[in-house]
Amino acid sequence: MLSRLDLFIDRMVSQRACLDFAIAQTAAMTGPVFELGLGNGRTYHHMRSYVEDRDIYVFERAVASHPDSTPPEDRVILGDVRQTLPASLDRFGPTASLVHADLGGHNREKNDVFARFVSPLVEPLLAPGGLMVSSDRMYFDSLTELSLPEGAVEGRCFIYCRDGDIR
Amino acid sequence: MLSRLDLFIDRMVSQRACLDFAIAQTAAMTGPVFELGLGNGRTYHHMRSYVEDRDIYVFERAVASHPDSTPPEDRVILGDVRQTLPASLDRFGPTASLVHADLGGHNREKNDVFARFVSPLVEPLLAPGGLMVSSDRMYFDSLTELSLPEGAVEGRCFIYCRDGDIR
Ligand SMILES: C[S@@+](CC[C@H](N)C(=O)[O-])C[C@H]1O[C@@H](n2cnc3c(N)ncnc32)[C@H](O)[C@@H]1O
Ligand code: NI
Ligand code: NI
Repeated sequence: MLSRLDLFIDRMVSQRACLDFAIAQTAAMTGPVFELGLGNGRTYHHMRSYVEDRDIYVFERAVASHPDSTPPEDRVILGDVRQTLPASLDRFGPTASLVHADLGGHNREKNDVFARFVSPLVEPLLAPGGLMVSSDRMYFDSLTELSLPEGAVEGRCFIYCRDGDIR
Repeated sequence: MLSRLDLFIDRMVSQRACLDFAIAQTAAMTGPVFELGLGNGRTYHHMRSYVEDRDIYVFERAVASHPDSTPPEDRVILGDVRQTLPASLDRFGPTASLVHADLGGHNREKNDVFARFVSPLVEPLLAPGGLMVSSDRMYFDSLTELSLPEGAVEGRCFIYCRDGDIR
């Protein structure tokens, strides 16, 4: 039986492998990157370190991140994603090159219910060729699930793609 | 430049590699295992999952761990380690087979000052053949620093050994 430390490492390592893959895959795109759930700010810091020449917007209910991983105020989209995602479709249109979601807590069933609710709010934001990386399985109509990159552990992370030519 | 996610993964992976090595290395010993600092309880959960037939005592100022990683009350040594370590020498004598310390916070200098202070309090607790795994460099007179096991990253974790025959 895996320990909580084992599971935690698997999750972090999978998250990083999927993010690195998705950042590289969308490097030629210019649309914004959306981070859903700031938390401690580790994955935001990772994206800020490795994403080049794209704006990163962070969706968060209440900012409580590590000081050196706190986004500038004008890059925070404050509020519940159930409201801020629909509002962002009006603001940005279908332009996102990469969306990363790590919104879940400890309760798997609650996470799943939330992922079902949020999926149709995320789906229209992605540009053609855009990728979505999620810690929870998502429920999309028009996105394709990709196989995981090397180093990621099955079931710990998910990647979805909006088919179509990269603009 | 590494991201905070990269550094965090390095730390977790190194901690696990060193703990797995130390648990295996001391498996024939019967003395207690001491976990200094419970935190979220992930490394305690790891030790509980993989240490066999040894008592695990947790030294912690204020228990605030994940519910499934909370030790039984009679295995918690509550209080500041600056007091509870000397008291434990009276109680246990030099019998510990494995001591793991992850007491540090974000401030490297403060961690180093604390490690210097705590080192002589940890040192007499180890049985001959016992190992000490630490996230901070320790300052021991009579323990030997070991080279890190495979998978651990230099500087992220440290292992020390009390020379002598395993009882
Ligand atoms: C697991 S943490 C994210 C951790 C982050 N990936 C990191 O590396 O530090 C989840 C975050 O999502 C936020 N969150 C959860 N549900 C939300 C919602 N409905 N709207 C906005 N933010 C939400 C929480 O406040 C929390 O900060
Ligand atoms: Ni939990
Ligand atoms: Ni820090």
